Amino acid sequence: MKQLTIIKIGGNVIDSSEKLHQFLLDFTALPGDKILVHGGGKIATELGTSLGIEPKMVDGRRITDIETLRIVTMVYAGLINKNMVAQLQARGCNAIGLSGADGNVIRAVKRPVGSIDYGFVGDLNEASVSVQTLDSLLKSGLVPVLCAITHDGDTQLLNTNADTIASAVAVAMSAVYDTRLVYCFEKKGVLRDVEDDLSLVTEIKRNEFEQLKDEGVVSGGMIPKLHNAFEAIRQGVKAVYIGKADELPQIDTEGFGTRLID
Amino acid sequence: MKQLTIIKIGGNVIDSSEKLHQFLLDFTALPGDKILVHGGGKIATELGTSLGIEPKMVDGRRITDIETLRIVTMVYAGLINKNMVAQLQARGCNAIGLSGADGNVIRAVKRPVGSIDYGFVGDLNEASVSVQTLDSLLKSGLVPVLCAITHDGDTQLLNTNADTIASAVAVAMSAVYDTRLVYCFEKKGVLRDVEDDLSLVTEIKRNEFEQLKDEGVVSGGMIPKLHNAFEAIRQGVKAVYIGKADELPQIDTEGFGTRLID
Repeated sequence: MKQLTIIKIGGNVIDSSEKLHQFLLDFTALPGDKILVHGGGKIATELGTSLGIEPKMVDGRRITDIETLRIVTMVYAGLINKNMVAQLQARGCNAIGLSGADGNVIRAVKRPVGSIDYGFVGDLNEASVSVQTLDSLLKSGLVPVLCAITHDGDTQLLNTNADTIASAVAVAMSAVYDTRLVYCFEKKGVLRDVEDDLSLVTEIKRNEFEQLKDEGVVSGGMIPKLHNAFEAIRQGVKAVYIGKADELPQIDTEGFGTRLID
Repeated sequence: MKQLTIIKIGGNVIDSSEKLHQFLLDFTALPGDKILVHGGGKIATELGTSLGIEPKMVDGRRITDIETLRIVTMVYAGLINKNMVAQLQARGCNAIGLSGADGNVIRAVKRPVGSIDYGFVGDLNEASVSVQTLDSLLKSGLVPVLCAITHDGDTQLLNTNADTIASAVAVAMSAVYDTRLVYCFEKKGVLRDVEDDLSLVTEIKRNEFEQLKDEGVVSGGMIPKLHNAFEAIRQGVKAVYIGKADELPQIDTEGFGTRLID
């Protein structure tokens, strides 16, 4: 099977025009089929504030009410996605920016109202990703750039976690590609000592995860991240990488961040 | 050659959720390959006002400064385009929303600064439309929905007239399809008496245009509209229709608005 790389970038890259510029150069240079998934960053919050719309929080969780949905649709699917695509095109990468509604590539289900009503937030399931449409775009030489807006197939757009989209796309595309999933975040990867970049754990096998948790090497917010990564691997993804965006060019040589494998 | 219909809708349809809903149903029902091009409507102006950004006018012409470009990118490529795509998907039309940057489908040139500096406005030329990419999307069963944002191929997004995009797409796609171009606007079409819908001129041939101008049947804003339409026909478009959005279902039976042919 052909190799497909799915890369997710978050606010720390998007909010810095310098970092974003460099990342898009590195992404363009990455050989083979690839898909970019991007989150939001500060711009949506800033636009909301300018419009007098305060972030809605319930029990510390962000709520996507109808006004917030309008804003994230404008910022993620419009401003960020189209500027990113225009930059990639200028570098020679034939990017095509998509929300989940476009070509029905990602269909979500509005999160059921439990103790918290998250509003217009979409959850994904095993039928969410249209492998056929993404595959046909890739075969046409296009590079999909997915924003964190999906739809429910019944006219409703939904705000959806970009990490979850990246993982669902990687799992689904594993049916027709050897997929690897790359999460770019603030740190070099999993560190034995958070203060020391040299303490990077370069590789974790699925059966080593429990032990690293017990040892405290993996803790805090890294636990759910790695849990989800190994879940993606269990479902067919060949490898998941967690590391710093600016080290992406080394992925096929010295390696990139922490590599998670089966 | 296969038939391809390019339909352009403007603010009068987009600003009314009822009209838009009906139009999207009719558009979905239209058989054969098709492309939708949409303009902006009032939402961009309203968002600008909410953000304290006044429309910039010079000699009665609207100027797209950098702040206005941000707004139209958010509203046209984000809010309007994605909501329209989500509605089409819900009706069973496999729509894919695109700016000109996506897949490099429409590349424009920033309008040169003359007596007026229009700002970030893009003009099109004969090389603007990527026929190959649009054709490959159509062959994948997708229905392109183009907004009025293009790019210059060098990272800059540009605000571009939607009528011009529709016409350029129709002309370029004539190389591989029998194309017809449909402009939906406020009136039933060209009327001998503007007050009387029954006075509709159902067909105008290219060589009749001058005479109708002399007779005053075609006047005012209709003159450049028809001039551009006949120019598109001269460049290979089989027919251009100008009529009311709600009469679209009749296009292949009783006819739609005023039909312009060679």
